[in-house]
Amino acid sequence: MEWGRSATHKGVQERDFTVTCNERTVPGVLWTPEHTGMPTSLVLMGHGGSGHKRESHLVSLARRFVRHNGIAAASIDGPAHGDRKPEGADAEPLAERRRRFLGEGVTDSMVEDWKATLDALHQLPELGPGRVGYWGLSMGTMFGLPLVAAEPRIDAAVLGLMGTAFVNGNRLRKDAADVTCPVLFLQQWDDELVDRESVGDLFGALATNDKVLHANPGLHSAVPPKEFQFTQAFLASHLAPTIDRS
Amino acid sequence: MEWGRSATHKGVQERDFTVTCNERTVPGVLWTPEHTGMPTSLVLMGHGGSGHKRESHLVSLARRFVRHNGIAAASIDGPAHGDRKPEGADAEPLAERRRRFLGEGVTDSMVEDWKATLDALHQLPELGPGRVGYWGLSMGTMFGLPLVAAEPRIDAAVLGLMGTAFVNGNRLRKDAADVTCPVLFLQQWDDELVDRESVGDLFGALATNDKVLHANPGLHSAVPPKEFQFTQAFLASHLAPTIDRS
Repeated sequence: MEWGRSATHKGVQERDFTVTCNERTVPGVLWTPEHTGMPTSLVLMGHGGSGHKRESHLVSLARRFVRHNGIAAASIDGPAHGDRKPEGADAEPLAERRRRFLGEGVTDSMVEDWKATLDALHQLPELGPGRVGYWGLSMGTMFGLPLVAAEPRIDAAVLGLMGTAFVNGNRLRKDAADVTCPVLFLQQWDDELVDRESVGDLFGALATNDKVLHANPGLHSAVPPKEFQFTQAFLASHLAPTIDRS
Repeated sequence: MEWGRSATHKGVQERDFTVTCNERTVPGVLWTPEHTGMPTSLVLMGHGGSGHKRESHLVSLARRFVRHNGIAAASIDGPAHGDRKPEGADAEPLAERRRRFLGEGVTDSMVEDWKATLDALHQLPELGPGRVGYWGLSMGTMFGLPLVAAEPRIDAAVLGLMGTAFVNGNRLRKDAADVTCPVLFLQQWDDELVDRESVGDLFGALATNDKVLHANPGLHSAVPPKEFQFTQAFLASHLAPTIDRS
């Protein structure tokens, strides 16, 4: 694990890092309390399609986890996203770009990258092997649901904006049968990218019985602020039930 | 309005009443704070099929509204339910019993009964013309959604466990176009009485854009306790945003 730029903002320390996994360099960011006396829980956050590890709503969410709940947060760039975007990728034909993050094996690599990241983070004294949550919508569920299915260290997850009719839908339906932790699943009722029925299929396929689907009106990326707040409260209640500094 | 039995339990005064509406006698219960210095908001609660105005989860909810949120609650018996059940009704053929509460005009009568009840309650000095919420699932939505559609005094509603494929589904779909207040709509994912798709139809038909669907695993009557608690918080946030005594 190597450290890059570091900054502190209103009690939140924000540090760039890289982790190496099967010769891939995985760039990430870690948000932790500036002052902390004990190891904290951790939320892994997966960004959406065409986004990156520091997209604004993830940064806001990470800071709220640290400040209000005393929970650390980490985010990594997805395949061919953020600092992992190849030079000249924007000029490539769409089919080529899609292959980079939707092709065969990409999900498995991303799951490996997350596991390597979690291994490294749990070595840090300020974290330790504490409770872990996952938060990721849309592409953050496309890669995150397989992670949650494969990773017993994850105690609770926020997923959504994804269904079985999407690119790797069959993989998702299959992996859903291995998701056994509590899940909050978000749906946008008027989602222009993910059809309503296939969201229900995926939610229904989750093996856990401790799951709830929240559907709000609006297009794919119009998740209401109060629903974002609820995702935070949901994870906090599972990761740090006794801490609420809000 | 006539008063019947009254009792006080841990700070909650519970009073039976009857209201007369178009020559029908409507039996109800009102829960209010034992000591209050100012008029309070009010939640109207509609019970489920084969239930009655004092079924246990309504009593619990009413007491929590009064104790934790300083909000009064009222409940009335539905058509041919509770104290409105005709003598010997249990011995009647099923078709006859159904006609009593599902027949032509029954919804309109129940909406009138609720309006007459609200008129009477708002005359009470301890209530006054304050904010009003509606809470009713299953049959409580069958009659309650038309009430919410017809009653501009209702500021927010908890509905659910009902769809457009049920008995008066067409009426519900039509009335949904007149529901303009914030709505929390509950669905049971494995509901054996109300099919999944028709719940989505009804939720989608609600005219308000301030609505959210919460779907939990389980059969029709297995709404999880934490979801019940959320319905309370939802109505409290709309009816008494500054009061939380929990």
